Amino acid sequence: MEKPLQIKFNSGVQEVTESNWTESETELAQRAFKIANERETRTLIQYACQRASEIKELDELWQLHDFLSSKRHEIEGKYDNRMSMLVFVFAQLLKEGWLNLDDLTGLGSDKLSKITALARML
Amino acid sequence: MEKPLQIKFNSGVQEVTESNWTESETELAQRAFKIANERETRTLIQYACQRASEIKELDELWQLHDFLSSKRHEIEGKYDNRMSMLVFVFAQLLKEGWLNLDDLTGLGSDKLSKITALARML
Repeated sequence: MEKPLQIKFNSGVQEVTESNWTESETELAQRAFKIANERETRTLIQYACQRASEIKELDELWQLHDFLSSKRHEIEGKYDNRMSMLVFVFAQLLKEGWLNLDDLTGLGSDKLSKITALARML
Repeated sequence: MEKPLQIKFNSGVQEVTESNWTESETELAQRAFKIANERETRTLIQYACQRASEIKELDELWQLHDFLSSKRHEIEGKYDNRMSMLVFVFAQLLKEGWLNLDDLTGLGSDKLSKITALARML
């Protein structure tokens, strides 16, 4: 069983666990997660396709391969959909521009402030 | 220092080393090696580009990534340009269609017979 994660904030140590999320927040979070994933996926596919179309030499193909290895590792690690990880995931996605604050409108102010604070720290 | 490789043939154990290649055979071999490499590279790049252009889902991008991982491993292992390995390399390339016998015209009949025999065994 997953142990609750703890992060240190101005207000002290606060647990960020599944039990903190209301039903409507959970739905909103799942939607935001999906939106970010689709945006990043679409952009990545377009980029890979564009790069592939410009390849003339084998070295360039292997550079694309290296890029995909790195992206695959990054994406598989980043999109962790455990509720306990969502604050961290959203902070990362916010920082990278795959989510914006409008996508998170409806989350409690406690979560929004954690997410934005974490995004600034990343 | 590289030890001479030995292969067993109908005629007995024969060494396949650098010293077996005449100057003109070496030039011809280098040209054939390059031709095969260019053919396979060009085909691979075209294929990767075509596959990339058809990708709609992230899973398909990772399938392309897996394919490139496998091809990179295969190609980096296959194009071994040590003279002592050329008979084996050419046999493989002949079998796979990246070389044909016309590309090897000019090699001594001893080498051609080894290459074609090996290609049949692969």
